Amino acid sequence: MASTWVPGVTGDSPFSLANIPFGIITTQFDPAPRAAIAIGSYALDLKALSDSKDLTKLASSLKGHDSVFSQPTLNAFAALGRPVHREVRKVIQEILSAETSHPDVLKNDKELQEKALIPQGKFKTHLPMSIGDYTDFYAGYHHAYAVGVMFRGPANALQPNYTHLPVGYHGRSSSIVVSGTPIRRPVGQILLDSTAEPKQPSTAPSRRLDIELELGCFIAKPNELGTSISIEDAEEHIFGYVMLNDWSARDIQTWEYVPLGPFNGKNFASTISPWVVLADALEPFRTKGIENKTPLQDYLKESKADTAFDIELEIDLTTSEGDTTTISTTSSKNLMWSFPQMIAHHSLGGCPMRTGDLLGSGTISGTGARERGSLLEMSEGGKKDIMLHGMDVRRFLKDGDTVGIRGVCGKPGERVGFGDCVGRIYSAVQN
Amino acid sequence: MASTWVPGVTGDSPFSLANIPFGIITTQFDPAPRAAIAIGSYALDLKALSDSKDLTKLASSLKGHDSVFSQPTLNAFAALGRPVHREVRKVIQEILSAETSHPDVLKNDKELQEKALIPQGKFKTHLPMSIGDYTDFYAGYHHAYAVGVMFRGPANALQPNYTHLPVGYHGRSSSIVVSGTPIRRPVGQILLDSTAEPKQPSTAPSRRLDIELELGCFIAKPNELGTSISIEDAEEHIFGYVMLNDWSARDIQTWEYVPLGPFNGKNFASTISPWVVLADALEPFRTKGIENKTPLQDYLKESKADTAFDIELEIDLTTSEGDTTTISTTSSKNLMWSFPQMIAHHSLGGCPMRTGDLLGSGTISGTGARERGSLLEMSEGGKKDIMLHGMDVRRFLKDGDTVGIRGVCGKPGERVGFGDCVGRIYSAVQN
Repeated sequence: MASTWVPGVTGDSPFSLANIPFGIITTQFDPAPRAAIAIGSYALDLKALSDSKDLTKLASSLKGHDSVFSQPTLNAFAALGRPVHREVRKVIQEILSAETSHPDVLKNDKELQEKALIPQGKFKTHLPMSIGDYTDFYAGYHHAYAVGVMFRGPANALQPNYTHLPVGYHGRSSSIVVSGTPIRRPVGQILLDSTAEPKQPSTAPSRRLDIELELGCFIAKPNELGTSISIEDAEEHIFGYVMLNDWSARDIQTWEYVPLGPFNGKNFASTISPWVVLADALEPFRTKGIENKTPLQDYLKESKADTAFDIELEIDLTTSEGDTTTISTTSSKNLMWSFPQMIAHHSLGGCPMRTGDLLGSGTISGTGARERGSLLEMSEGGKKDIMLHGMDVRRFLKDGDTVGIRGVCGKPGERVGFGDCVGRIYSAVQN
Repeated sequence: MASTWVPGVTGDSPFSLANIPFGIITTQFDPAPRAAIAIGSYALDLKALSDSKDLTKLASSLKGHDSVFSQPTLNAFAALGRPVHREVRKVIQEILSAETSHPDVLKNDKELQEKALIPQGKFKTHLPMSIGDYTDFYAGYHHAYAVGVMFRGPANALQPNYTHLPVGYHGRSSSIVVSGTPIRRPVGQILLDSTAEPKQPSTAPSRRLDIELELGCFIAKPNELGTSISIEDAEEHIFGYVMLNDWSARDIQTWEYVPLGPFNGKNFASTISPWVVLADALEPFRTKGIENKTPLQDYLKESKADTAFDIELEIDLTTSEGDTTTISTTSSKNLMWSFPQMIAHHSLGGCPMRTGDLLGSGTISGTGARERGSLLEMSEGGKKDIMLHGMDVRRFLKDGDTVGIRGVCGKPGERVGFGDCVGRIYSAVQN
């Protein structure tokens, strides 16, 4: 992979020339949300670039679609399909390459650079997509098993359906927020004494506020009501990926979730990273997921073996005193179900996927003590302290804590990463 | 209530002058979706009416919002809030009244009538709202109890949380369709032999395709992330109501639903009636719901006693031979939780409700054998035949069956009803 002429792109930057993730930005001088890509610490304003007509000249598949980058979400661009995303990413890589054969487009055009190449601190990122429906799966086998042991013991940790289908539930799209959005500790019904009979709930701020480390997948190509997406076609329906923190209030969830599943324990907020890493950018990092020995139904059988991605994942917890501890390090290969399997299953009965719909992988955990994707697991159900720097400990989140999750693949200088997926906890408001 | 000068409004019409429900229509000569109200068998085109400027002259709160009726959904109108809905409804009632004091607006303006008053058969109805999130509650006590007995026996029929909070789950908004849309029988994973161990699913068309008779509630006024809606304010957040048939595939649901709730068993289709009955139109039909003897948390306590509506509900099943049987008759008062309670609970932790969000009541059943809101209950878990006219029987739906649900209140000539909420079953497509 060539290097870029854009200044200050360090070896560790998640936004190397090998990446080119897409997002939505605003600036002080142009408050209209519009599309951009991230390169090093800069955002490249795609509206400015396509206004100059050079982008559509080089990326012929964009012809007639000049306006997609002037819109406040990436949905219109996503809807153009993967061949278009592929061409546009390649053209942008070419324009930004140190050895570009089109230096006039941007490299030597200082005036356009001034307008289109916006340094960190001068732009704000927003939710990249208008999200119709959000579905959260449960494909992190080690997470599902560990949580199952806590609730039902090792013999019945996983339900009989777990290895036959990618279990998932419908989430709440209205509370999906972009990295940096403050997270208000939710108030909810909780059992202060879970052993007392009869059960008597109280209404109080959650005492077991947790995180869930997930990979999110955005849908590009829709299917019609009453039709399904075959597993062979599913990859063509994917736009790209983000990091996802599905904040969870375990005490609210425990009391409410029977028999219809999680509700207020989950719907108060989910944070995503602002830059959508295109499906093509992750292709070089394919690997095997967790082996599923159960014979699968035909509609879930995949022809390729490497259906997961080996993205290095980390969770940082920063206390209000400013001490940061990396409390978990794992990989996104710890999934038993692939996104194509999730898409094939989700649409099997004819459910329409729409451009911009978000699928969450479910919490991703490894098997080791410091490889867990939730505090619930790290603290063994809230029974054990998680050690932090600065002599501090946690079982669940305190007000003032900031959690950041990171995902990155590739060698220094060629990193493909997701950038920030951060949220800080603010104290609950009680009416 | 006065009568209307609009011709042919029969005593039995659900769309009397006392109703004035809002919807979205298209016509052959103007295929652009736009707002209308229903009166008798006519649609009154509100775009045409507001183009004539008379509507905004009479409804002063519409000033500056002339375009709300030219849009393809009612969201912009709904977002204006209940005082505006109330005034617009009153003005339309006045214009359409036989004794109108503004006969020039429409009654005597044959040219505008020709344009704006569109007879049945000349217009098509569409989804009235752009639905961000769909939440389905479980407030039908008799349904929850009857289904609980089937699954867990009478002692544990209801979970301990049931009387403390309105249990609900996030549904799928992408598959909500308007009355008349064909319903494709879903394919899914089912256990053909549920007693065999280990469990071995097959992929096949659902054999237990069912209906759920529900009342749907559309949100008008949004709340911000991190804030909640108090129960006193909740009524002001409601736009209006529709009939809702939440089609369900019981065999898919039974196998998939542990531990995270219903998924493919529900997300293939939900049908709503096309006309939104405004909250104000249902006010005269308030009544008590099912008594909840459990002491409630403060945020769920209501000051008024009549928190349910006494809407007469009916389910018709029409076979492919054309024989129609009314298989159920019940009332929407059979709910233990009110919509204000659902809204207060849903937003308690700070979850944002958006204009156009849909809340389902959950299946509404009475206690008698012919008062059930689902075939699962009528057939006692699929064990007993439901008798139909024409010597036919059902336990679940057959291909070619048409199900219509109806809801109506009020005296002849002053009916407030919902009109059609109909869907016909088409055979599954297997890849």
